[in-house]
Amino acid sequence: MSSALMTLKYHYVAYSNRISINMQCILPQGQTTPERALSNPWFDKGFCEPHQYRAALDRCKGGYESCDMFIDIFAERVCLEREYAANLERWAASSIKRISQSKEFGVNKKVWVESIRASKEIGNTHTDIAQRLQDTVVEKMVTYKKDNYGKSILHVKKIKEFERDFEQAQKPWLKLLDKINRAKKDYQDAQRQFKKAETAEKIIESDRGAEEEQKTKVQLSVSTYKKQCEALKSKYLQYIEEMKSTRANYENAMKEVLDRTHSFERKRLAQFKLLFTAFQQALVIDKDPHLVKMAEAFTQSLNTHDADKDIQWWNSHFGSDTNTNWPSFEELKD
Amino acid sequence: MSSALMTLKYHYVAYSNRISINMQCILPQGQTTPERALSNPWFDKGFCEPHQYRAALDRCKGGYESCDMFIDIFAERVCLEREYAANLERWAASSIKRISQSKEFGVNKKVWVESIRASKEIGNTHTDIAQRLQDTVVEKMVTYKKDNYGKSILHVKKIKEFERDFEQAQKPWLKLLDKINRAKKDYQDAQRQFKKAETAEKIIESDRGAEEEQKTKVQLSVSTYKKQCEALKSKYLQYIEEMKSTRANYENAMKEVLDRTHSFERKRLAQFKLLFTAFQQALVIDKDPHLVKMAEAFTQSLNTHDADKDIQWWNSHFGSDTNTNWPSFEELKD
Repeated sequence: MSSALMTLKYHYVAYSNRISINMQCILPQGQTTPERALSNPWFDKGFCEPHQYRAALDRCKGGYESCDMFIDIFAERVCLEREYAANLERWAASSIKRISQSKEFGVNKKVWVESIRASKEIGNTHTDIAQRLQDTVVEKMVTYKKDNYGKSILHVKKIKEFERDFEQAQKPWLKLLDKINRAKKDYQDAQRQFKKAETAEKIIESDRGAEEEQKTKVQLSVSTYKKQCEALKSKYLQYIEEMKSTRANYENAMKEVLDRTHSFERKRLAQFKLLFTAFQQALVIDKDPHLVKMAEAFTQSLNTHDADKDIQWWNSHFGSDTNTNWPSFEELKD
Repeated sequence: MSSALMTLKYHYVAYSNRISINMQCILPQGQTTPERALSNPWFDKGFCEPHQYRAALDRCKGGYESCDMFIDIFAERVCLEREYAANLERWAASSIKRISQSKEFGVNKKVWVESIRASKEIGNTHTDIAQRLQDTVVEKMVTYKKDNYGKSILHVKKIKEFERDFEQAQKPWLKLLDKINRAKKDYQDAQRQFKKAETAEKIIESDRGAEEEQKTKVQLSVSTYKKQCEALKSKYLQYIEEMKSTRANYENAMKEVLDRTHSFERKRLAQFKLLFTAFQQALVIDKDPHLVKMAEAFTQSLNTHDADKDIQWWNSHFGSDTNTNWPSFEELKD
C-alpha cells in the first residue's frame, strides 16, 4: 500500500510538472490528488468486492452534480455578458443625452453622438454571445440532464436503477461470502478445540498417575473433534468450490452493470465535449457583424467631421456673417 | 424676424428629416433647435453690436465644458471595460475552484478548466481596450485641456483673455455710440423745442390782438432754437461721420479677436476628431491576439478530450482493472 502510494505520488508530481507548462494559475490537479485518493474509500480496491460498486454509483452522482455545476457556471457567464451589454446601453444612452443637452453643435456634436452609438455595437456582440451561450450551451445541458437523469423525490432515478442492479447482482454472492465466513469460523473454532484436546491427551499420557478412564475419555474427545473438523473442513471447501464455480457468472453480472454505467458516463463525457465545443463556438466573434457595422459607422461618421463647417455655421448665426445694425443719422419722427 | 424664424424652422425640418435617415434613437438636434435658438440671447444678431462678442466667449466656454464632458464620458467607458474584465476574472477563478473541488476527473476536468481559462481571454481583450482608451483618448484630452485652457482661480484663463481683448476692441466704439446717442437726444430735444416755438409764433401772428413786443420775443425764440438745432445737428452728424470713419478699424479689431477664437475652436474640433478616431482605433479587436490565443487554446484543449481515457483511468483505479481479493481456503494460523 505504501509502495502504491509512492507510485501515485510520483505520477502526481510528474503530472503536475507537465501541467504547469500548459496551465497556470490553479493548483495542478489532473486526476485525483493523493489527499483525495486517501479520502476516497473506494480508491484502488477490487471492484467485485462487497459494496465496492458504490464507487460507480458515486461516479454517476458526480456526473449528475457536474451537469448542475455546468449549468450554474455557464448561466453565470450568460449573466456577465448580458450585464456588460446592458451597462454599455445605459452608458451610451446617458452619454448621448448629455451631449445632446450640451452647448456642442454641428458636425462635432453629430460625430460625437454617432461615435458613442457605434461603440455600443460591442454590446450587441456580447448580447449575441449571451444568446448563443444560453441556446447552444446552457439549454442543451438542461435538456440533457432532464432526459438522462430523471428524478425521484429524493434521489436521481437513473442512479437508483444502477444501484438496484448492482445490489441484485451482488446479493447471492454476499450470501455465499457469508456462508464461507461462517464455515471458516466454524472450521477454525473446531480445529482450535481439536488442538486443545490433542494437547490435553499428550499431558495425560505423560502423567504416570493418570487413570485409564481419563485417558480413554481424552482419546475419545480427540477423535470426536477430528471427525468434526473433517466434516467442517469439507463444508468450508465445498463453499469455496461453489464460489469458484459461480465467480465467473458473478463477475460477468457485475461487469454488465458496470458497463452500463460506463456507457452512461461515456455519453455524458461526449455531451460535455460537445458543449465545450459549442461554448467555444459561442465565443467566436472574428466574423461578428456588429463589429463590422461599428467599424463602418465610425468611418462614415468620421468622414463627415469638418471643423470648418461648424465654424462657418457659427459665423453665419453669431459671427462675421451676421448683419450688424450700424447707427445712422435719424431725424425726429412724428 | 418672424420671416427669419420661419426660414430657420424650414431649415430645421429639412435637416431633421435628413438626419432621421442616418441617426435613430435620439431627438434630431443637429445644429440648434428653434427652441434653443430662441433661448439663446445672441442668436442671429449682428456680431459688431455691443456685447454680442459674448456669443464667442460662450462658445469657448462650451468648448471647455465639452472637454470636461469628453473626459467624463470616456473615463466611464474605461471603467465599464475594466469592470467586465474583472467580472470575467472573478467568474473564471471561482468556476475553476468549483471544478477543481468537484468529483470530476481526468481529461474532462482538464478540458473544462482549460475552457474556462481560455474563455477568460475575452476579458484580457477588454482590459486592453480599457488601457488603449485611457492612454490614447482620455489622457490625451486631459493633456489638451490642461495645455489649452489653463485655469485662474475662478475662470478659465484663455476665455478671460479673449474677453479682455474683445472689451478693449469695443471700448472706444461703445464711447462713440454713447456720444452719438447723447448728441441724437440733444438734437432731437432741441428740435422739439424749436417746433414748439414755431407753433407759438404762428399762433401769435394769427392773433390780431397780440402785442408787437410779444411777436418780437417769439421770433427771437424761434431763431435761437433754430441756431441751436443747427449746432446740435452738426455735432450729431460729426459723430456719425466719426463712426463711419472708425467703423472699418473697429470691425477689423473685433474680427481679429474673433478669428483668434475661431482658431482656438478649430484646434479643439480637430483634437476632438483626432480623439474620436483614436476612440475607434481603441475598440478595434479584429486582430486581437487574445482572441487568437483563446481560439488556439480551445482547439488544443478540445483535441485532448477523450471520454475513453477517463473511463480507462476509472477502470484502473475503481473498476474492472482492479484486483479483487477473492476468498480462498485459509487454515488456522498462529
